[in-house]
Amino acid sequence: MYYCGDEETIAALATGKGKAALAVIRISGKEAIEKIKECLLPEGKFQKVLPNRINRYNFIDNETKKIIDEITAIKFVFPESYTGENMVELVCHGSEIIIEDILSVLIRKGIRLAQKGEFTRRAYLNGKMDLMKAESIDQIIQSTNRIHHKCALEMYTGNSKKTLIEWKNQIIAILSDLEARIEFPEEDDILGKKIEYKKNIAGFVEKIEKEIKKREKIKLLDFGFNVPIAGIANAGKSSLFNLIVGFNRTIVHHEEGTTRDAVSEEAEIKGRRIKIIDTAGLNETDNTIEKIGIKKAWEYIENGNMIILVSPANQELKEDEKTILKKAGKEKTIVIISKNDLKKTENKNEYFKNENIPFMETCLLNDQNREKVLDFIGKHMETFLNFDDENGIICNKRQEEIFFKIRQKGKKTLEIMDNSYEDMISYELKGILNDFEEFFGEIRDDEILDAIFSEFCVGK
Amino acid sequence: MYYCGDEETIAALATGKGKAALAVIRISGKEAIEKIKECLLPEGKFQKVLPNRINRYNFIDNETKKIIDEITAIKFVFPESYTGENMVELVCHGSEIIIEDILSVLIRKGIRLAQKGEFTRRAYLNGKMDLMKAESIDQIIQSTNRIHHKCALEMYTGNSKKTLIEWKNQIIAILSDLEARIEFPEEDDILGKKIEYKKNIAGFVEKIEKEIKKREKIKLLDFGFNVPIAGIANAGKSSLFNLIVGFNRTIVHHEEGTTRDAVSEEAEIKGRRIKIIDTAGLNETDNTIEKIGIKKAWEYIENGNMIILVSPANQELKEDEKTILKKAGKEKTIVIISKNDLKKTENKNEYFKNENIPFMETCLLNDQNREKVLDFIGKHMETFLNFDDENGIICNKRQEEIFFKIRQKGKKTLEIMDNSYEDMISYELKGILNDFEEFFGEIRDDEILDAIFSEFCVGK
Repeated sequence: MYYCGDEETIAALATGKGKAALAVIRISGKEAIEKIKECLLPEGKFQKVLPNRINRYNFIDNETKKIIDEITAIKFVFPESYTGENMVELVCHGSEIIIEDILSVLIRKGIRLAQKGEFTRRAYLNGKMDLMKAESIDQIIQSTNRIHHKCALEMYTGNSKKTLIEWKNQIIAILSDLEARIEFPEEDDILGKKIEYKKNIAGFVEKIEKEIKKREKIKLLDFGFNVPIAGIANAGKSSLFNLIVGFNRTIVHHEEGTTRDAVSEEAEIKGRRIKIIDTAGLNETDNTIEKIGIKKAWEYIENGNMIILVSPANQELKEDEKTILKKAGKEKTIVIISKNDLKKTENKNEYFKNENIPFMETCLLNDQNREKVLDFIGKHMETFLNFDDENGIICNKRQEEIFFKIRQKGKKTLEIMDNSYEDMISYELKGILNDFEEFFGEIRDDEILDAIFSEFCVGK
Repeated sequence: MYYCGDEETIAALATGKGKAALAVIRISGKEAIEKIKECLLPEGKFQKVLPNRINRYNFIDNETKKIIDEITAIKFVFPESYTGENMVELVCHGSEIIIEDILSVLIRKGIRLAQKGEFTRRAYLNGKMDLMKAESIDQIIQSTNRIHHKCALEMYTGNSKKTLIEWKNQIIAILSDLEARIEFPEEDDILGKKIEYKKNIAGFVEKIEKEIKKREKIKLLDFGFNVPIAGIANAGKSSLFNLIVGFNRTIVHHEEGTTRDAVSEEAEIKGRRIKIIDTAGLNETDNTIEKIGIKKAWEYIENGNMIILVSPANQELKEDEKTILKKAGKEKTIVIISKNDLKKTENKNEYFKNENIPFMETCLLNDQNREKVLDFIGKHMETFLNFDDENGIICNKRQEEIFFKIRQKGKKTLEIMDNSYEDMISYELKGILNDFEEFFGEIRDDEILDAIFSEFCVGK
């Protein structure tokens, strides 16, 4: 039999989990069409219909002959499919039980469950798309924020590649000039040329650097902008947490040491998704469980991306609160002075003003202050995340690591430029070109592919 | 323009939420095809392709002309579609952002988001399926257990309807015999006939009753079989909870009063989905927060479907534990005697044996006991849920309520049989026939339809 897909036929649920009107199960591989036809009634229909047409069938358990679901199915004949192999897409009802039953039948028929990214990996191996496009598909799906999404879409449409090829060509231009100089060392003044090279390479490194910085911010958005709420016991941390999350997730109570475990929740403030963490109050305690909570609280404070210190107006500023500012870093901390309806013991405002730390005063038990508090937090989050309008290039970890390598070689080139022979400089620049090739996926390596596609979701 | 769907064109995400390889967006209504074609590139292609064919396009924001995603699309021309209207199915990448952006474009084009069940409602109104089939589609999707699923599938394939028509015909047979008797009262001995009627109607009521009982059990499985873990403080309740759930969800600690809030988790034991609830220990306390927890614990115990009492082997049976057995009911309680590695204070086994309450002894801190514990719990759950192999008929609340009405009329008929005139009996039986018609959806009523379809998921 001629090639029409991988020997191993694979299947996976391609749509989201959970109850829904519909679900799509994808099957790809040499025998995809052959094997599915035995599960569809009326008999013979699936063989006869033309590819790319949707039709209704009963999907049956081919052993018990019982109907599992009424479905629609489309067959795609290689190479005219996503993977470039024979493929079938089944659209069944979005019930967990039906999906499970259909996949069980497929497994019994010798079809195996697809690994993460295996469909796209096959598409790439069968020449249906280049590596950057394959990666971008995953990133389009994974991205939970518009900036990352836009970045992935630019990669998908090929715009990012255009930019990268331009940059690569700048290096090629320098390199060929340099190579010519190695062959004909007598011509021209080398010092003047080196100044020009340095200027160009410095500009190049700057662009690389900028992309790495954009990536840093995207990662903050992607992997959760962690915002621990810190403070002494009974400062109003849980009240703030509830105010943000919007319902009584934790028990708010006047007694000290109420929040033992750190409680966290995904929340959206001014359109940005963050993880807000209610930590244990930093009070002295002999209680072993509370001690565990306090130890955790310090960890959250040190690892947070932005820390909200809640400090009650009716108590003096404590040593622990100053330690929070120190451990978290002033530039990462904002302060909410709570309980401003109670009698003030000292002028905390003055202190935070002098220290140049953003603060607001409020009463957290009053729901009417919610918007004001969210505005305050949101405004300061933006200063951390401050994106310009440009599209980023780096979409994932692999690409990020290659950018690190390029930056390093670029910087090294600048360092050695003045005191090195042309061939040493040329060596570094060739390394950069090699890195670009790796980025574009022009170098195929099974281990690298494993690493790339194992990050994908199943069914893609 | 002739009819090709509702004036209002509707759209919805039809597949599950969350990141996935693919997502399907459905559009239905008179202008579905017209409006979508303006969003698809290359221009003119979507108009030209034949219905029921899948093709690739770029979906663009028709205002900014920017590409939102590379998709595939299929058009369905009325009446050859799910709803019986013009329809389009878009298969895009399963990204929240893309789905949101595509739906935004559609809304700007005057397409509105579909209400729950609106696609199926249209299918029903356009004569594509009867009401029972429409309802069963929803139930196929909603069902989280195989028994409910099987029940919905029987409804979907029409088997349940066949059974119901048989039952209805039995009532019709009695009714026509009775009506003949009203017209020709002189013939035959009425007493003998009434005995026969009674026997038949009693058999009929019994079948109705049996279905209602099956429904009760399905509801237990559907809406959560609540299993609170109860006991005195530090009995090992959280250890059992963690053992069942399979990871350290709660802090397990030797100190009393560790679990303050009730913690609950969905878990599967021997294929049955249950909600397992770790409650606060029932110890004396002055701590106000713990008092709240204990009050909640008693509520869980009283409302649980099966209660697991954890009683430590190294302590005598406490009054609180006896109160648990009383409040929960012995027939709803099973006991795990924990800490059987410690010195025993009395023979608890003997007590539970005498009281006829299922129990086992174990050490909950040893993971190796997990299977044994799950077996014990699973076995006793089955006795509560004990289903026979037959398929149930009642799929949802509406159908259940009609069964209640039928049962009531059936019982009343039996009561009045001996001492009533034939026309009073006939009146009740006609009522039953009317209920059947309502069940089959032969009576159309907008309010009833609203109630039915609003239970569906969006996109169906």
